[in-house]
Parts: sequence; C-alpha cells; structure tokens
Amino acid sequence: MKITQAERDAVYKTIFNRRDVRAEFEATPIPDDVLKRILTAAHHAPSVGFMQPWDFVIVRSDETKQKLKQGFIQANREAEALFEGERKEQYRSLKLEGIQEAPIGICVTCDRTRTGPLVLGRTANLDMDLYSSVCAVQNLWLAARAENIGVGWVSIIHDHVLHQTLGIPEHIVPIAYLCLGYVSHFHDQPELEKRGWLKRQSLNSLIHEEQWQDKSHK
Amino acid sequence: MKITQAERDAVYKTIFNRRDVRAEFEATPIPDDVLKRILTAAHHAPSVGFMQPWDFVIVRSDETKQKLKQGFIQANREAEALFEGERKEQYRSLKLEGIQEAPIGICVTCDRTRTGPLVLGRTANLDMDLYSSVCAVQNLWLAARAENIGVGWVSIIHDHVLHQTLGIPEHIVPIAYLCLGYVSHFHDQPELEKRGWLKRQSLNSLIHEEQWQDKSHK
Repeated sequence: MKITQAERDAVYKTIFNRRDVRAEFEATPIPDDVLKRILTAAHHAPSVGFMQPWDFVIVRSDETKQKLKQGFIQANREAEALFEGERKEQYRSLKLEGIQEAPIGICVTCDRTRTGPLVLGRTANLDMDLYSSVCAVQNLWLAARAENIGVGWVSIIHDHVLHQTLGIPEHIVPIAYLCLGYVSHFHDQPELEKRGWLKRQSLNSLIHEEQWQDKSHK
Repeated sequence: MKITQAERDAVYKTIFNRRDVRAEFEATPIPDDVLKRILTAAHHAPSVGFMQPWDFVIVRSDETKQKLKQGFIQANREAEALFEGERKEQYRSLKLEGIQEAPIGICVTCDRTRTGPLVLGRTANLDMDLYSSVCAVQNLWLAARAENIGVGWVSIIHDHVLHQTLGIPEHIVPIAYLCLGYVSHFHDQPELEKRGWLKRQSLNSLIHEEQWQDKSHK
C-alpha cells in the first residue's frame, strides 16, 4: 500500500505537533467510537513475536482519579525533595499531570507471561515485551493527536498505586498511565523547552556514522 | 494546530500498514534528505523530562553488517535450541532479519546519564528513559512507513555484539537495531499472523473498564 506525499506530510504534521498535555484538558467527553479508533491503533503496534502483551485499563470515575491523584501527590513530594535551590522552585511551578481534569485515563500494561514462557524474538533481550507495550503507547499518542485529542503521560506515580487502585495483578507491569482529553490548545513546543527547563539537542549531535563518535553533549 | 479528517486518516493508514520487514528489502539507496526527515521525526518523540536520551548510529558498510549478521546467527542458534518439535521446524523456516539486504541499519540507543543524574519525571520509575528511546523507535518506524520505507527490528542479537561492533560505550543501552530500506511490497498482515505463528487478539479482550477484569486469554 503506497503512502502519498500528502499522507506522508500528515504523518509528520502529527508527529511534530504531538505534545505531553497537562493543563489544557477540557471536560468534553471523548465519544466511544473515537476511543475505539485510538485503542485499535495502539493494538496495531509492533510486538515481539506478535505476542501483543498490552492491556488497556480505561479510567472514567472521579473516585478512581482521586486515588491516582493522591498517588501522584505522594510521588511528586518525594521528587520535589530531590531538587535544590532555583531548580526546586522551578520544579514546583510546573503542572505535571492532568489526572482529574482529563475525562479519560488509560493505563497501558505489559503481560510478561502472554503467549507462554518462550516468545520468538525475546530470547536475547528479555525486555522486548516491555518495549512492545511502549510502542503501543506511542501509537495511541499519535492516533489521539490525529483526533485532536491531547495525551499526558503521568510518570510520577508508583507502580504499586496503579496495581492497587486499578486491581492490576502482580505479574502485569504498568507501563504508562495516560490522561486523554480534548484540549483548549496544543503548545507549539514542548512545555519544558518553552519554560527553559532543558533545550532541544541538535539532531547532528545525536547522529553517529558507522561507529559511535564522542559528541560534546556527553 | 488542527489535524483534518484527511490527515487523521493518513495517520491511521500509516499505522495499520506498518510492518516488520525482513525479506522484502531492495538495494535502492535511501536519499540523505529522506533519512534526515525520518531521524528528525524520531528526535521529536516524547522523552521524560525532555532528556532526549537517544542517539542514532547509522550503519552502511558491508563489513559492519557482516559482523552484526554473525551476531544474529549466534543468537538465533541459541534461540532455535529453545523451541521443540513442530514449533522448532516452523521457527527455522522463518526469515527473521534483513541485516545485509537493507541498505541502512540504525542502532537507536539510550544514554541513561544524559542531562545528569536527576531527571524530571524519572524519579518514581527509573525505566522512563528506556521507554523514551522506544518512543523514538516507533516515531522512526512510522515516519519511515510514511516514506514507503520498510523497517525491521532485529531483536535476536546480544547487546554486547552491538556495543563491540559499533563502539557503543558501556553506559549506553542499545534499544533497537533497525534495518531500513525500500521494499518490493509490504505484507497486508504481520507475517507471524499470516504464517499462523500466533493470532491477533481481539481488542475487546484487552480492554478493562475502571478495574482489571479477568479475560480468557490470560
């Protein structure tokens, strides 16, 4: 199946305008058919040995979101304590999640036992299953952006909070807790870049020809 | 920036027609500007705390590819020995890489020390940096597909072979070795599905409402 130039440009537009959303969520509900399309895209990510190790726990209730928010607050307090001086002040000024504002939360997981103990392609590197679930996250994120829906990845939360709150079995690994919703607007740059937290690295400094080269940013 | 319906459909078309390519690579070179666009897309993946932990080692020489192929052969021999009976026969009949046929190889890595020891958002879950590099892999894969270029992820190779062959420093984690090239055609389904290795799970069996539910495929 051939992708046309216009279609290619649409893919790039979506990739370059994807953002990690925290503050811009609106309450507008996400229709079921739109959510279904986004999850179908996630389910069509590559997976090692076609094991499809992902599951999607959909969170809608205020009660569940409140428990997860408490988990964030706890983990964020621990994180804050690690920063010092001006950096701590800056850290505290950042909004780092939109758990309660986003109409939908999705926990993407990895079932490391799916399809049995022996998985094609997961013999030299046992983490390939985790990586497959991350590919599903990125497919989901781009599909949502293509639907003009924002996604925010909440990484400042402990796994045990996700396990307990969502009833996820012990052997299932939570990979990402994602907040989804329509947004007032998408930022034109990543917020951490806009706010001066870190700069974007030049692409050239990340490219090595044939062999690893020492680059200044190391 | 609004994504139109036609643009949205282009993103879905790309996601659903992306394949893990092994046997269909053609020798046609990938122009530099096309490769640059694909790498730029990878570089615009989400990363935890905007740390952008990825690097891209571009492999073009037959000599390097030959060494990597040897690494695959070794790891594949080990893998083959784990399968039994009919499954072993089927495993042996599959082509699982196109290292030498693909004009370009790209090793995507993760520098776990980039931007210093303390990374925003990487405090509760230390693997977030690895996940960021995987997001770059998936962006790269979709961008390549949008350019009608096939990508194959070679996971049957040991990290130490990538470290040694490509001169990657010890503290840098190889995330993926990807083969890139134009293709004779893209399969209409994942090859492992087509060949009956495993079936695609139903999406409904992977969706849980509010709480994890026991599903039959577990």
